[in-house]
Amino acid sequence: MNNIQSWGETLRLLVELAGTAAFALSGVLEGARKRLDAVGVCVVGFLAAFGGGTLRDLLLDQRPFFWVRHVDLLWGLLALCVLAMLFLRHRHFELTERGIQWPDALGLGLFTATGVDQALGSQMPALVAVLMGLITGVFGGVLRDIVCNEIPSAFNDHRPYAVCAFAGGWAYVGLWQAGAPDWLALVVCVGITAGLRALALWRNWELPAWRV
Amino acid sequence: MNNIQSWGETLRLLVELAGTAAFALSGVLEGARKRLDAVGVCVVGFLAAFGGGTLRDLLLDQRPFFWVRHVDLLWGLLALCVLAMLFLRHRHFELTERGIQWPDALGLGLFTATGVDQALGSQMPALVAVLMGLITGVFGGVLRDIVCNEIPSAFNDHRPYAVCAFAGGWAYVGLWQAGAPDWLALVVCVGITAGLRALALWRNWELPAWRV
Amino acid sequence: MNNIQSWGETLRLLVELAGTAAFALSGVLEGARKRLDAVGVCVVGFLAAFGGGTLRDLLLDQRPFFWVRHVDLLWGLLALCVLAMLFLRHRHFELTERGIQWPDALGLGLFTATGVDQALGSQMPALVAVLMGLITGVFGGVLRDIVCNEIPSAFNDHRPYAVCAFAGGWAYVGLWQAGAPDWLALVVCVGITAGLRALALWRNWELPAWRV
Repeated sequence: MNNIQSWGETLRLLVELAGTAAFALSGVLEGARKRLDAVGVCVVGFLAAFGGGTLRDLLLDQRPFFWVRHVDLLWGLLALCVLAMLFLRHRHFELTERGIQWPDALGLGLFTATGVDQALGSQMPALVAVLMGLITGVFGGVLRDIVCNEIPSAFNDHRPYAVCAFAGGWAYVGLWQAGAPDWLALVVCVGITAGLRALALWRNWELPAWRV
Repeated sequence: MNNIQSWGETLRLLVELAGTAAFALSGVLEGARKRLDAVGVCVVGFLAAFGGGTLRDLLLDQRPFFWVRHVDLLWGLLALCVLAMLFLRHRHFELTERGIQWPDALGLGLFTATGVDQALGSQMPALVAVLMGLITGVFGGVLRDIVCNEIPSAFNDHRPYAVCAFAGGWAYVGLWQAGAPDWLALVVCVGITAGLRALALWRNWELPAWRV
Repeated sequence: MNNIQSWGETLRLLVELAGTAAFALSGVLEGARKRLDAVGVCVVGFLAAFGGGTLRDLLLDQRPFFWVRHVDLLWGLLALCVLAMLFLRHRHFELTERGIQWPDALGLGLFTATGVDQALGSQMPALVAVLMGLITGVFGGVLRDIVCNEIPSAFNDHRPYAVCAFAGGWAYVGLWQAGAPDWLALVVCVGITAGLRALALWRNWELPAWRV
């Protein structure tokens, strides 16, 4: 049993690192596209990776932030940005973007689950908990786009992203209220979020636009 | 006496709901103009309606947020956004925009009064209390415009909006310091703010531009 | 000794006021360039001057904000904005911009030192303390540019600004950990930050751009 648990922990850590790296790289790519300088690229990478969780902690009034408790994450992010600036060229951008789609989907699910869990632990009502999950998963990208002076792509590319996290978040809340163990709620939430996102990308689903 | 008080409470609640709905609709309209998808429209509606009060609570370090205490407000907002997306067409936009001017002006006054009152209750100095009132009334629209990648209209359409709230806020502070009852300060603040705003719209007043 | 200390305090206050005024003026100028109205100019001036410190206090969860403790700062800022709108004309803009470069560099150094000091006092790890210094010095300008719907110039004008604060912040942390007195760490941090900034402006240093 202990063995399984420690395997689960390791797996979770791996998914978390892969997801964070994918989020950060999405920021680095957008910063590079906008011709930001080295400082700007690092800041946008940081916002994309940690902005959502930081905003959630601000709203739930929880300190210290997770990147204060785990400063190595900050150092790792800095290293990632420097490495990307040294080795990533424009011709690699499209490949990188395709490569980070899967870790990004997994990260979205995991971050959503973390946000919902933390909000439920602070006695938030169900809808607010789901919103906090959404904010954790989606608002890093929103802050990234705002700093880069774009309308957030999560709000206008008409491809399901936040709605996947919304569905996953409700699944987490439902299982939690039914008394399911934490790991099960986590796995189901990640599975639904990432699964829906993968389906949406594969089948080219589109969110309804405004009917003129 | 009790009767009057309960009538006052009901009236206040009605103004609050009408104002919140007007703020939310201004967000929905701007989101629709920018061709956001369903998720974006809801987020922008939420920011326009609750962004100012949330920012005030963050700055004053007050929890839980009012939309956590009254989750029905969130559900109502979600319903409003969905209904707007189902039934509002582009040809209704102008009419809606004209229709929400009055509840918007009343809401501006009421939100300003709420913000000033809460800041005074936290022992803030007078100027800071007025600023908190301003933030409550105006920064929902500012956040809405930032996410929609526009310069906030409150800052560059040269029509008095924040200054009306500024005047109303000082009236509240003055009456509060003179020991007037809460309801009187509230009514005067809403009256001055909404009255000035109505006058400004009616007489086409313009804020001074930068003299070249 | 007491005499020297009180001289030091006075000097520090003078630098702080000059730096704050320079930051505020940078906001006023950008607001004027974007043709904002009187309200917008004041808000952008406020964000440029106090936005960084406010964000730091939000992240470190410290209240009351410094502009709540020193409300005269707010009144002074309001006066500065009104005076600028009355007397500053477009033909003065370039001169003003050149004139505020030096107080701006000093202010950057001082604000960075303040941020690092406050974060170290809240038991933050070294890297986080330097980040808080950076945020204090740089994010006022970032908020100013976001509200004015521009990519923050600190991230894309390729002239060293945040990196100077980064170097100064590490110097502060190093001296603090070595047990040096506060005033020494402060002076060295301001000297390094402002010195590097001056050198960069004088020699036209450029941050590395993304290699295509």
